[in-house]
Formats: sequence, structure tokens, C-alpha cells
Amino acid sequence: MPETQFLELNPTFVRTSNFEQSKELQPLMANTVQPVSVQNKQQTPTEQNGHQSSIPSTSKKIKGALTRFALYFCGDMAPFAEWMKGQFILIQIVDWVLRGAAQVMFVNNPLSGIIIFAGLILQNRWWALNGFVGTLSATISAMILKQNRGAIAAGLYGYNGILVGLLMAVFSNAGDWYWWLLFPNIFMSMACPVVSSALASINSRWDLPVFTLPFNILVCLHMVATGHYNVYFPQVLIEPASTFPNVSWSGLNYNLLFRSIPVGIGQVYGCDNPWTGIIFIIALFISSPITCAHAVIGSAVGMVSGLALAAPFDNIYSGLWGYNCVLACIAIGGMFYALTWQTHLLSVACAFFCAYLGSALSNVMATFGLPACTWPFCLSALTFLLITTETKTIYKLPLAKVAYPEKNLIYFWKMKKEERTEKWKKIQELEKIAEELKIAMEGKEKQLMINTMTAEEVKISIEGPEKPEQKQVEVSMETANTETGNGPTIPESTPDTGTTDGYADV
Amino acid sequence: MPETQFLELNPTFVRTSNFEQSKELQPLMANTVQPVSVQNKQQTPTEQNGHQSSIPSTSKKIKGALTRFALYFCGDMAPFAEWMKGQFILIQIVDWVLRGAAQVMFVNNPLSGIIIFAGLILQNRWWALNGFVGTLSATISAMILKQNRGAIAAGLYGYNGILVGLLMAVFSNAGDWYWWLLFPNIFMSMACPVVSSALASINSRWDLPVFTLPFNILVCLHMVATGHYNVYFPQVLIEPASTFPNVSWSGLNYNLLFRSIPVGIGQVYGCDNPWTGIIFIIALFISSPITCAHAVIGSAVGMVSGLALAAPFDNIYSGLWGYNCVLACIAIGGMFYALTWQTHLLSVACAFFCAYLGSALSNVMATFGLPACTWPFCLSALTFLLITTETKTIYKLPLAKVAYPEKNLIYFWKMKKEERTEKWKKIQELEKIAEELKIAMEGKEKQLMINTMTAEEVKISIEGPEKPEQKQVEVSMETANTETGNGPTIPESTPDTGTTDGYADV
Amino acid sequence: MPETQFLELNPTFVRTSNFEQSKELQPLMANTVQPVSVQNKQQTPTEQNGHQSSIPSTSKKIKGALTRFALYFCGDMAPFAEWMKGQFILIQIVDWVLRGAAQVMFVNNPLSGIIIFAGLILQNRWWALNGFVGTLSATISAMILKQNRGAIAAGLYGYNGILVGLLMAVFSNAGDWYWWLLFPNIFMSMACPVVSSALASINSRWDLPVFTLPFNILVCLHMVATGHYNVYFPQVLIEPASTFPNVSWSGLNYNLLFRSIPVGIGQVYGCDNPWTGIIFIIALFISSPITCAHAVIGSAVGMVSGLALAAPFDNIYSGLWGYNCVLACIAIGGMFYALTWQTHLLSVACAFFCAYLGSALSNVMATFGLPACTWPFCLSALTFLLITTETKTIYKLPLAKVAYPEKNLIYFWKMKKEERTEKWKKIQELEKIAEELKIAMEGKEKQLMINTMTAEEVKISIEGPEKPEQKQVEVSMETANTETGNGPTIPESTPDTGTTDGYADV
Repeated sequence: MPETQFLELNPTFVRTSNFEQSKELQPLMANTVQPVSVQNKQQTPTEQNGHQSSIPSTSKKIKGALTRFALYFCGDMAPFAEWMKGQFILIQIVDWVLRGAAQVMFVNNPLSGIIIFAGLILQNRWWALNGFVGTLSATISAMILKQNRGAIAAGLYGYNGILVGLLMAVFSNAGDWYWWLLFPNIFMSMACPVVSSALASINSRWDLPVFTLPFNILVCLHMVATGHYNVYFPQVLIEPASTFPNVSWSGLNYNLLFRSIPVGIGQVYGCDNPWTGIIFIIALFISSPITCAHAVIGSAVGMVSGLALAAPFDNIYSGLWGYNCVLACIAIGGMFYALTWQTHLLSVACAFFCAYLGSALSNVMATFGLPACTWPFCLSALTFLLITTETKTIYKLPLAKVAYPEKNLIYFWKMKKEERTEKWKKIQELEKIAEELKIAMEGKEKQLMINTMTAEEVKISIEGPEKPEQKQVEVSMETANTETGNGPTIPESTPDTGTTDGYADV
Repeated sequence: MPETQFLELNPTFVRTSNFEQSKELQPLMANTVQPVSVQNKQQTPTEQNGHQSSIPSTSKKIKGALTRFALYFCGDMAPFAEWMKGQFILIQIVDWVLRGAAQVMFVNNPLSGIIIFAGLILQNRWWALNGFVGTLSATISAMILKQNRGAIAAGLYGYNGILVGLLMAVFSNAGDWYWWLLFPNIFMSMACPVVSSALASINSRWDLPVFTLPFNILVCLHMVATGHYNVYFPQVLIEPASTFPNVSWSGLNYNLLFRSIPVGIGQVYGCDNPWTGIIFIIALFISSPITCAHAVIGSAVGMVSGLALAAPFDNIYSGLWGYNCVLACIAIGGMFYALTWQTHLLSVACAFFCAYLGSALSNVMATFGLPACTWPFCLSALTFLLITTETKTIYKLPLAKVAYPEKNLIYFWKMKKEERTEKWKKIQELEKIAEELKIAMEGKEKQLMINTMTAEEVKISIEGPEKPEQKQVEVSMETANTETGNGPTIPESTPDTGTTDGYADV
Repeated sequence: MPETQFLELNPTFVRTSNFEQSKELQPLMANTVQPVSVQNKQQTPTEQNGHQSSIPSTSKKIKGALTRFALYFCGDMAPFAEWMKGQFILIQIVDWVLRGAAQVMFVNNPLSGIIIFAGLILQNRWWALNGFVGTLSATISAMILKQNRGAIAAGLYGYNGILVGLLMAVFSNAGDWYWWLLFPNIFMSMACPVVSSALASINSRWDLPVFTLPFNILVCLHMVATGHYNVYFPQVLIEPASTFPNVSWSGLNYNLLFRSIPVGIGQVYGCDNPWTGIIFIIALFISSPITCAHAVIGSAVGMVSGLALAAPFDNIYSGLWGYNCVLACIAIGGMFYALTWQTHLLSVACAFFCAYLGSALSNVMATFGLPACTWPFCLSALTFLLITTETKTIYKLPLAKVAYPEKNLIYFWKMKKEERTEKWKKIQELEKIAEELKIAMEGKEKQLMINTMTAEEVKISIEGPEKPEQKQVEVSMETANTETGNGPTIPESTPDTGTTDGYADV
């Protein structure tokens, strides 16, 4: 008990941990963003006061102001969301739609949403309109179906809607401003929350998110239901490859290759304009630099994979190898796993796997005249999130605790520190008991040496008070055993014997 | 306690609720059917006596006789099933086969089964024979595999068998009366309970039925394993569309379009004869008017969807757009959800979604030379049954309580009434406690004013008897809290905060 | 309590049960193998001493020596695995790789692994090298990912690796000794534990193994991602059938047909050399004769199915109809179900179903240029393992208890005996209580007749001591009810009424 109180009250202890964080995050966060979880908000002013009083320089003051400013616009803009709750419903819906637009990249931030919409308008205004209609329809449909208000407000019902709207416009063969398209667009977007809710019922059994599966299902549904030869809603013609592509290393254009990295990020929303991709990168950076870094890494990995698997250069240039890897790399690298070096490497591995899977699925789905959509991302990310391992450095966050990579990290560190404190307390208790026992034993021995008693008397004096102490030790040892038994070291050996000759765990 | 006794003993209370039911059901049930659940059977005579003694007119008497008559032939014919249990096993099997034939449409009624077989014979005698062999094989196989006797008796192992038998005959390219077909027919029908049982192990985790998935799997298995170019068991040639269809509104035949509604119902069993469809409608009406109404609505929705998606008119006329919607509309509209206005609208939405999905799957599966079977129905109905929502008006019945729409409604109403009674009782209890507390407090005050005691004495007198009462109140408040905590109102707020920034529930 | 002690201490009791086992296993085990579970190891010497002291003939001595010898090389070679644990890690890895090679056939035995590698080298040295690289990569990857050490040591992470390595070489169109192939080979093999672990997270919910699903997924992934028209990694061309095959019974070659049985077993590893198949049969026999027998039965079933479905004779001769049935038949026949006559028949049924499914999937997957791999085996075996039935003779072993068919049988028999003992004890207890009650009642009656008391006194004397006895009986009856209520007889009736008109359990 005294230890926990110490932990909660002593500000230096908290500051140290924050210092650790900022140190590790520096390369990514450029000293401007200092992530502070919403739960810690009450403690934050105290901390910073402590900071400022000890080193009252002007540069520090500016830093503090910047930090406070960043807190309002970075991460998930929690204070803004809190303020929004009291507003008129139509204004709230605008907030939800913007968050929905950004949630495609796992970003829960209306400012990023505005920037993303700007990028879309730069690409194609008709597509942007369809995306907006899709997000709006999906959000309203979720409200009609009485889905969880918190999830709607976080844009978790909107992001499939924007993708459905956008990609139905992108793959339509009827040309831009074909207004009839809005009918299937609205119908399919309104079906998003239905499919989302159904998939969530299944995925929640494994504490997994639904990712963009509803979008994949619904867009594929629309495209294959109508097809290239439909009179009302024709789709672009997609056919499987049936000849050797012309791949010669001498024809490689390094400019286009480098440009494919932002284009790959833009292709998440079906956009092939590199400037749109750069705008999206800015939108990501505002909310979460870790997310932004992984997006760039993912796009690069996709490009390299395309070269390794002898893909036609045009596909690589147009970012088609990148967008799935972008999403997969973000999801594994800090979003659903707490970011450590191990999960960072895992996210790169997942991006490579995703690129492979992307090539496979685009070949298979071309048979039906379908694009790969983001199926490769969904399947590879779900696979990598289902891994169970005995190492503690790959920690999958409970779905309810997932926010953005920086906040997830703080949660992870806090949890680890609490674990350490608990362990340390337990050790201390055991030591105390051992000490007490030692003292008691010594006292007994002294008593034995000083007094001159008959053998009978000595025996009684020892047995009498010694007994309860022995018991106490036994009990404490027992509890220590059961407590460590819940830890990760003991169970390793238990399944070991059971599964040596069995099929368990495989 | 006294309230529940009142509830059970007072016949007027029960009668009122039945009156409510019959009032709401009147438009669908045409005053002839008054559904009474099997569990209520003991109460039924008392009720009706009560009815008749109060209004002893002749018309009422006839109505009563009709009701009793209807009870024997409508719904699931529970008294007949009870009587059957004592019969010779071969007669029982006939009952099970007939129920199996009707269970395709979720109807557990041997009379409907006979009518459906009559419709099949009208269509094609060879198909009807194959259907019968399939149902019989599946039922016997389920008995060999020691499946649940109750489920076998309800025809739940037979309905996949009849579809396997029928559709294998329908899609065979070897012509009618090709007797060798009976071998794969029997083999595949006998595999039905295996696949059913396996799928039930999976679906039961989400309390979902298997629908016609075993049929879909096994018929597709047979068709694709043999294919169009098989020497022994050739299948009809199915190929994907590769040209624009000729769709001109001027060529629309309204007679054929209207006829497509019964044809769509007939296509559930692979029959394109409109008279067979009408016979099936009669079979549905006998057992459950709600089911019948939704079947017609579903078929109409399918027809409209076909027109909206520019399908070739011949496909629409032949009911290929209808049969999946028929099944989906029945399943959602009152069968697995309790029928309310919300679920009725949901069933129409599901029918539209199912039509879309049907178009998509038939295009995809044509690539492999396969028809869409009832995959669209299964997938769309499962999706709509997996939805979770925070509204109470969309109530998914526990699978063990599913019977037929009318009985499901009674179950739902009863449950809701019990809930209300419980809530009311709880409020009353709390009020009583508050009243007692008030009286006790008043007594204390009076005592205080009347008596002239020393401060010490007063304190003792208050603390002494006051304590137990305070405790009681605290306890009762606590239990009230925990009880309402299990209700649906409180938890809404709990995930709300947790998921505002997370991915939970999506 | 006394009964269990008797059971544990009395060696004759244990001997009898072992005698029963060896008697039933004789036809398959040719008197050489006497399976003794690892848990019983401490008891084994005592038993065999008891055996030898009673009948001290020379032949028995030789038999005993043979048995001991067999114990070291048959089954899962548990003593060897135990000894291995103390060795240098590189030597351990060799053991794991060998066990991994054999685990494709569910055999956890390094000796079988050596023989299988010999068979592969006989077939094609380049393929064997790829297989070895695959197993090694998968095992090392599993160690990097900190998977369960016991599972790695049992080869459960290696068997997908060997298949990935082998089949990528088999289906490569670039010819043998194309060294670049090792890159995707290593990448895909290292992805095996990832996919295995992810699938295990899903399948473990139903206590199912992952079988060769990771191999199927990854090889199909590689083949379809590159395809026939890839410049770096071209695949062999696989196309769907589009003409009638030339099937005439007069052209049937009975020699080739008979040879297809060992070839079918060889095709599990992609080998079409009949001698390789025979070597594999020997490898199976060493570890488990029951497995070996089912492999041969499965291959024969596959061949017959091919003939029944009018498959081109060349496919049948080359064992393509056999290998899935081999695996399915082994899995159901004694490996995951305890071997009884019922499960033996089920395994044959599963093999037929698997052959059908194999034909279907190979037709479907040929559309994408893919072979069927072992998808048919995985899907059919999973289906048959998901069956739930009310008979006790089809007993699915808990996954953690699965070893090899002979050991599984011993586990099953032991469990059944314990169940019987428990039941008998319960009956005895009930009888004892009834006896005591009878005596008490008689005593009461006597007392009543002897004494001459007033009515009042009699009443008091009876009610006084009688009460507790009545209570005791009630309680004991109640416990008996609840205990049998957990048994399989009572619940049969409970769902019966519930599901007569419902969809439950289907």
C-alpha cells in the first residue's frame, strides 16, 4: 500500500517516465509533440508547473505552449471531441464525417479529415463528392441502426462509407458526374454499418477490428453484381494477365519509382496524384508521427516487393503495390501492437507478406473482373494480429484501449511499470518476512543460550512461539508460489510436456 | 412474490395479452388462426371457457371450433407431433420426411410438406422422386449418426436432403429418369447431416442456424466435381456473361413480371411452374400467414431489384431474382427476429441486399459453371442476424426458442411483459422501503420530541434501532444498482467512454 | 476412495487392461509393438517383471526385449526426445527437422523422418534440398517468434515448411537447380509459423488442429502471386478441363491401378515414384501400424472414387486421387478420434468425401492455375472433426492428448474404465444409503411396536430422529440426480422438447 501511494503522489516518478518516452520518440516527433494521455490530463499541469519552476527559461516556456497547442490538434483531439458533445447534432455529424474520412488510415482526427478531403478535391471533385456522400450515408445509417454512439463519433462507421463512395466512383466505367451512381453509392454505404456490425460480432471473439472488410465486401459486391457489361452501372474492365510482361531493368525510371511512395499512400483512397499523397502524409503527421513513418515505410516495402516479384513497372509506379502495405504497416507498427523494436520489425515483415498477398489476390480477383481492393491488407493484418507468442515484447493492446500509436505506447509503458512495481513489492514482502523470521530465530537462540532451563522447558519454549511463525512462512511461500504461477515463466513448462507429442497450440 | 402469483392465477390478465395479440395479427391471420403456444396448452381450455361463458353467441362457438381445428393443422402441428411419438418408426419417418420438405421454407408442418410434394409432382415427377430420396437418405443418415432425435423429428436434417436431391436432378444434363443419378444423390444426401452437424458446431457459437448451407456446399461440390464435361454425371452448361444484355423497357411484359412472384417462390425448390409456386404459397399460409406474407414480399423485392440492376428480363421472369429474397425475407421477418415494424423493415432491406448479393454470386460462380444456389440467402441472412444494436425492438430470439413467427411473437410479448412486471416490482419495493424508512424516521423524531432524556440517552436510542434500518436501505439500494446494472441502460455509457477513441464494437 | 487405491496399487488390474490392448492390436502390430504410455513408464518395469516371473520361458524373454527395443524406436520415441533435451541445440534442431518431415503424416518420429528424407532423395535431390531448407527455415522462424518449445520439438512447425519447400520446387516451371527459388522458399517457409499461429488462434476455439492449412495458403499464395507468366518465378501451367476425357473401361491398366496405391501415399510429398511411396509406407509402419493401415486404405478409396467419377485414368495412375484421402483417412481413423469400428467406418466415409471434394477443388482451383494442394484433406477432415453426435463410440480426443493412434487408444480405454468405476461407485453408495435407511426404518417400527407410549410421545419420538434421516436421503437423491444430470442420458430429453419445433442443434 505505501508504495502505490508513493507512486501516485510523487511527481518526479511520473516525470522520469515521460522523459524516457520523449527521448525515444524524439527522432519521430521532432521535439514538438509530447504525447500525454487523456487520463493523465489532471496530472499534466502539475507536472509542467514542476518543470517550469525548476528551469524557468524562455525556450522552455515556448515549448510548453507548443506542447499544449499540439495537444489540441494532434492525436485524437480528445478535448475537441469532448467539447463537441454539447453541440448541435448537425455540427457533430460534420465532426464524425471528418473523423470517418481520416479513420481509413486509423487516424481519429477531424483536422486530418479536412486535409484528406482537400487532397481528394485536388484529385477529382466527383470522387470527393461520392466519398462525402458515402461517409454521410454510412454515419446516418449507423445512427438509424442504433449503433454505439462512441464508435460513431470516432468515425468508425464512416471510414468504410468513404471508401465505398470513392472506389465505386473510381471503378465506374460511366464517366464522372454520372449522377445515377449516387443511388447504389447510398445503398451500399448504408449497408456498411450492417456488415460492420455483423463482422464485429465475429471478429470480437478474437478481439480483432473489422478493418476495411465491409468496404471490400460491399465494393466487390457492387462491381461483380453489375460487371463490365451492365447497361446502367458498367465497371472498368479488369482481366487476368495472360502473357509475359516486359520487365527489363534498363527501363527502370528512378524518378517515378521514388514518386511511387507518396502515390502508394494516395492509393489508399484510390488517388494516383503524388501531391494528393503528400497531402495525406501531412494529415497523418499532424495526428501521429509514428503512423506517418510507418505509412512511408510500408509504401517503400510495397515498391521493393513489386520489383522483386517482376511486376510490370507501370503497376509499381502507380502505387498499386504500395497502398495495402501502407495500411498493414500502420496497423501492426504501433496501432494494434504496442510499438517496440520487435513489433516494428514485425510490421515490416507484415508489409512484405501483404505485398505478396496483394499480387496473389489481384491475380485471382482479376478472373472475376475485380480489383484487389484492400483485401490483402485486411487478411495480412488479421493474420499478424492473431499470432500468439511467448515473448512479452510483442504486446497486442486490448481493442478497447487502442487509440493512436503514441498513446498506446504510454498505456503499454504504464502497464509494464505497474507490473514491475507489483513484482518488486512482492519481493520486498518476502524479504521482510524472511527478515522477521530471522530476527525471531535469533531471539530464540539467544534466549536458549542465556536461560538455564531443563530440556523439557526449552522444548516447550521453542515449540510454543515457533509454531505460528513457521506457519506464517509456509503460507507466505504458498501465496508466492501461486502468484508467480500466474506469471509467464511457470506455464511454459506445463504445456511443454503436454504438447511434445500432441497437436496442441498448432 | 404476491405479484407473480397474481399473474399466474388471474385469467383476465392472460386473456388481455392474448386479445392484444389477436388484434395485431388480424390483418395477416384473417381471424381464423389464434396461435397458442404448447407451453400454454394447460391454460388454453380455461381461457376459452372464460371466453365462451361471457359471450355465448353461436358465431363465437363456431369461431372457437375453428380455432381448435386450426390449432391442429396450423403452426408446427405440435399435438400431432406429440401423438406421432408413440407410433411405429416407419410412420414417424414419413412425418419427419414431410416436415423436412416444408422446413426449406422454415415451416415445421407435415401437412405443408404433403402440399409441397404435390407441387413438386405437378412440376416434374423425376425431380419429386429425387427430392423424396434425398430427404429420406438425409433423415436416415442423421439417425445413423445419432443426431438429436428432436431435431430429426422437426425435419431439420431433411430439408437439406430434399434440396440436394431436387437440385442435383434439376442441374443434371443427362435428362430425366437417368437412374444412375440416384447414387450420387444418396451419397450427397447422406453427407448432409455430417456437414450440418459440423457447421452447427461453428454457427452455434454465435447462436446462428445453418440455414441451407449444407445443401449449397454439397450441390456445388457435386456439380464442380463432375462438371459439364463429365462422362457419367454431366451438368448443365453455365457460363459467365460476356456481352451487353438486350434491356429495353418497351419490351417489358407486365403479365410475366407479375407471374414472376409465385414463380420466385417456386424457385426455392428449383421449380419454374407458376402453379407450383401458388401451391407452395398455400402450403405456407396453412402453417403461418406471417411467413406467407414475407415470402410474397421477398419475391416482389427480388423482381424489383432485378429491374433496377438491368438484369436480362428472362432471368427476372423465371424467378431467379426472387427465391433468395423469399427465404431471406422470411428468415429476418419474424422467424429469427421477433416481428416488429423495425424487423419488418429490416427484412425488406435484407431482401434487397440479398438480391444484390445474388447477382454478384451468380456472376462469380458462373466462372466455375455453378449456379448461385441459395448462397445469397444464407450469407445475407447470416449477416443480418449477426447485427448487434442498442435498440430493444430488434430482438433476436434464442435459437432454442425459434418456432414459427406467430409463436415467436407470443414468446417475445410474454418476455417483454415479464420484464415490465419485474421492473415495476422493483420500483414498488424501493418505494416501500423508502416509506418504511420515512415512518421509522418520523417515529424517531416524535420519540425525540416527547421524551425528555439526556443527550447520551437520545444518542443511544437513535443509534440502536436506526442502524439496522439504514443497513437495510443500503443493501436494497445496492441490489437495485446491481440489478439495473445488468440491464441495457447502464452499460451503454460504459463502452461509450472506452470506445470513443478505440476500435471496440466495430 | 478405497476403490481408487485398489486400482492404483494392484498390478494385476493394470496388466489385464494392457493384455486386452495387446490382444486387439495384434493383427496390426505383429506382436512386436506393445504401446506403453509415457505416463505409465514408472509402472512398466514392475508389470513386465510380474509377467516374466509368472511365465519365465525364453520366447517370452525375447518378446520382452523386443518390446523394450520397439519402445525406443516406435510411436513418438518419447525416451529419445527426453534424452535430446540435454543435447547441444544444433543436434536438437536436426531432431526437430526430422520430426517435422514425418509430421506431414502425423508421425512424431525422427527415424521415420530419416526414412522419408531418403525417399525424397530417391525421387529428386533438388526437391529434397528444398524440403530440407523449408523445414529448417520454418523451425528457426518458430524459434525467433518464441513459439511453444514443446510444439517446435514435436516438429509441429516444421511439417508445413517441408511441404512449402517441396511443392514450390515441384510446381516451379524454371527447372531443377534454379537457385533463386531458395529466396521465396525461405521467405514462405519462415511465414509458416506466423500463419500456423494465427490459424491455431482460430481453430483452437473448436479444439481443432491446423493440419496443413498454412502450407496450402502459402504455396497457393506463391503460385498465384507469380503465375505461369512470371519472368523470375514461373509456375507450371494448370488449366481447367474443357473437353470430354477419353474414359473407356477396356483401356484400364490393372498394374498401374494397383501401383497407384503407393504412388498416392508418395504424392503426399509430391512424389510420383512408387518406390518412394513404399519407403514412406515403411516409415509409417515403424511409428504406428494403425496409421500405416489407414494410409493404404485411404489411397485405395481415392483410387476407387476416381474410377467412380469418370476421372481421366492418368490422374488416377499418378496418385492424384489418393494423397488427400490418405491424410484424411489417417486423421479420422485413430489420430484425432479414438479408434473404434464406428470411427474406422467414419474414416472411410471421410476418405470418399475427401475424394469428391478433391475433384471439385482441383476443378475450381485450375481456373486460377492452381493445384488442389491438400485443401481437400484439410476441409474434409475439419468437417468430420466438427461433427457432434450423441453416441459415445465416436470420441474426439482433446487436442492436448493426441499422440499416435495406439497411445490414443490406451488413453481412451483408461478413460472409459475410470468412467465405469465411477458409475459403479455411485451405484454402490446409493445402495448403501438405501440399506441404512431401511435399517433405520425397521428400528423405528420395532421401537414403535415394543414400547407402549401415548400417541403424543410416539409422535415426538418418530419425528425427532426421523427428520434428519429423511433429509439425508433427500440430499443424497438430489446429488445423485445432479450427478447423473451431467451424464449423457438425461440431457437427451431436455433439448428434445426444446428443439422439436426449433432450429437448435442444426
